[in-house]
This record gives sequence, C-alpha cells and structure tokens, in this order.
Amino acid sequence: MPQTSEHTVKSYEDELTELARSISEMGGLVEKAISNATDALIRSDHELARATVAADKKVDAVQRQIDEMAVSIIARRQPMAADLRLVIASIHVANDLERIGDMAKSTARRSTQIEGLAMSSQFKNGLRHMGELALRQVKNALDAFAARDKDVAIDVVERDTEVDALYVSLFRELLTYMMEDPRNITMCTHLLFCGKNLERVGDHSTNIAEQAYFLATGNTMTADIDDLKRKQIKS
Amino acid sequence: MPQTSEHTVKSYEDELTELARSISEMGGLVEKAISNATDALIRSDHELARATVAADKKVDAVQRQIDEMAVSIIARRQPMAADLRLVIASIHVANDLERIGDMAKSTARRSTQIEGLAMSSQFKNGLRHMGELALRQVKNALDAFAARDKDVAIDVVERDTEVDALYVSLFRELLTYMMEDPRNITMCTHLLFCGKNLERVGDHSTNIAEQAYFLATGNTMTADIDDLKRKQIKS
Repeated sequence: MPQTSEHTVKSYEDELTELARSISEMGGLVEKAISNATDALIRSDHELARATVAADKKVDAVQRQIDEMAVSIIARRQPMAADLRLVIASIHVANDLERIGDMAKSTARRSTQIEGLAMSSQFKNGLRHMGELALRQVKNALDAFAARDKDVAIDVVERDTEVDALYVSLFRELLTYMMEDPRNITMCTHLLFCGKNLERVGDHSTNIAEQAYFLATGNTMTADIDDLKRKQIKS
Repeated sequence: MPQTSEHTVKSYEDELTELARSISEMGGLVEKAISNATDALIRSDHELARATVAADKKVDAVQRQIDEMAVSIIARRQPMAADLRLVIASIHVANDLERIGDMAKSTARRSTQIEGLAMSSQFKNGLRHMGELALRQVKNALDAFAARDKDVAIDVVERDTEVDALYVSLFRELLTYMMEDPRNITMCTHLLFCGKNLERVGDHSTNIAEQAYFLATGNTMTADIDDLKRKQIKS
C-alpha cells in the first residue's frame, strides 16, 4: 500500500503542515455548522437542523485526530520552543472549535422546538445579523491563527462587544414577546438559548484569537493590554 | 536564594507531582466557587456573590500555571507514552476546570440580579440539590482522575443524566413562574441560565471523567461502550 508508506515517511515539516490543515478543515466544518444552524432556525428548516446535528460527529472526530496528531508530534519529534507552542496551541484551538460545533448543534436541536412562533422580520434580521457576526468572528480568529496576525487577533477580541450587544438586544426583544403572550414563553426560552449559543461562539472566537496573538508575539494579550494601560496612566 | 535553587533542581518525578498538585488545587478552588455561587443564589447573598466573582481570577491564574508547567515538562523532559498522555490530559482537565469556574462566576453574577423574587422553598431545594449534585460530579471526576479509577469515571458519566433531569424539572418550574406573572420573567431567565450553568458543570465533569477513563485504560470511554453494545447485540 503505497499510501501507508507515504504517510510513514512524512517529514517533520509535513506533519506540522498536516496539523495546520486539520485545524483549517475543522474550522471549515464549524463555520458551515454555525451558518446551517442559523439558517435552520430562521427558516424553521427541520431537515437542515437534523443534518447539522448529524454533521457534528465529524467535528468531534477531527478534534480527536488533531489531539492524537499533536501528541504524536510531541512524542516523536520533540519540538522546540516555537513549534511546541504551536502544537499545544493547536490542541487549545481544536478544543474551542469543538465547543463552537456544540453550540451549532444545540442551536439546530432547539430550532426544531420552535414551531409557529411569529417572529417579526426585525427579530429574524437581528438573529441573522448575530449569526453572521459570530461566523465572521470565527473566520477572522482562524485567519489570525493561520497567519499569526496579531492585529487581526486584537480586532477579533475588540469586536466581541458587538456580538454581546446584539445578544442583549435580542434578549430584550424576547422578554417583550414573553410578556405580551405567556404562550410564547417556552419557544422564547429556546430562542434565548440560541442567542446565548451565538454569543458563546463569540467568546470561543476570542479564545482562538488570544492563542493567535500569543503565537504571533510570545506574550499573552491580557498582559500586553495591562502593560499598555499602565503606560497610558503614567503618560 | 535557596528557594529558587530548590526549584531548579526538582526531579522529573517532583514535576509530575507538582502538576497533579496544581490540578487538585484548581479543583479545590472551583469546588468552592460552585458551592459559594449556589449559596449566593439561594440566600441572595450579594457579598458572597462578589467574592465568588473576584475569586475566579485565581482559577484562571492556576490554569495558566498548569499550561506553562505542562509545556515546560514536555519541552525539557520529553515524557514517554504514559507520562505524555498524563501531561496532555492535565491541559484538558485544567481547561474544563476553568470553564467550571466560569459557570460559577456567571451564576454568582446573575444571583445579584435576582431581588425580591419569592422562590418557593421547593424551588430553592431543587436548586440546592442541583448545586450539590454538580459539585459531587466535579469531586468524583477529579478523584477518578487523581486515582485513575475507571469505575468512578464511568459512574460520573452515567450520573450526568441525574443533573440533566434536575435541570429539566427546574426549567419546567421556571416556565410556570413566568406564565403566572409576567413580571417574574426577567428574573426567571436569570435563574434559567443559572440552572443551565449547573447543568454544564455536569457536562464538564463528564469530560474530566473521560480523561480519567482514558488514563486508566488507554481506551476512550465511547469506544469501549460501543464495543460493549456490539458484543451485547451479538450475544
């Protein structure tokens, strides 16, 4: 089997590339999952919801692969400082991506519980906007990680407040719906958790961006921000 | 400075012990945090809530320490198979503990938003019970990890359904409150998320138990359970 022998003679460089490729594959899967989960929710598309839930198994499988790959690289290649940081960061990023996948799965599941709720088009737009924003945060965080781009990483962390703000306004609107008609309450709580899921996608993107910043600069973003604040206070 | 030199001459064995000690320290901190957050919620104790939120910084700091320790052990000691698995598992467990800490912090924060809601003593008992159950799950998962006890690990995973069931009954009761009086809705949504937080503590405990199972047996729990099911179907 030539394929197997090809795999076994892979160079160290190839293995690191393969690890990066797997992170990017996993990223593609969860991006698709968030997009599908949001669509399923807005369009009440149960078929798409079920497909989204089923697709999460693949995300989990890729995470296990990344974990195994990372451990195997560490064990056999004994990577030095920078490479070791990259391999460990990959484990963290895969973990955050797996949780983002879970958020999509949860949203897809809940979407099937919402039937016949007349969402205003304003509300649907808010939800769509939040889904797009969360998706953009994931994409940018992964780009920052792949390119070790500290500016993109900072941008992701700063823009998390936008996702949070959208969640707060969604939350307020849902409260109004619930107060207007108690029969809406059960469905609205599902929507509340869907909104919360998207807000948490934003948080996980921030975690990924922080890993990217660390790879790019060797410092944690929090430490650098604290440092900057101290300098500003002094000046 | 004798202390520094003492640290630098630490043996490999000492370093692994230190890593285990840090996991156990972090475990103690988050157990305390869950217990305090639940108390703050049930007793409307804002002082305790603020202290719980503040204490989470320490949890985050210990996680960073564990991460650095793990990376440093891998880089300098190049651990072999079993030890390497332990070190990598420690990174995963510290990650789950950090999230459990976040759940406690979120619950403590929300507890200060609930003022003057007349919770029935039955409801408070349900909340207390759920807090105790979540706490026990964390404790047992950490015990399973420390002792590499596969039976305790399986027990934790199996009992997660108990936490889930309590959450579902809490959820139903909250819906009733909301429907009875729309003025309760805002506070009830906070309680809903507090319940969800405890339910997620159960999920993170399950993750820790799965790491424990893997260290104990070398297999993933899911694979073994699938295997068992296949055998049962055949027989």
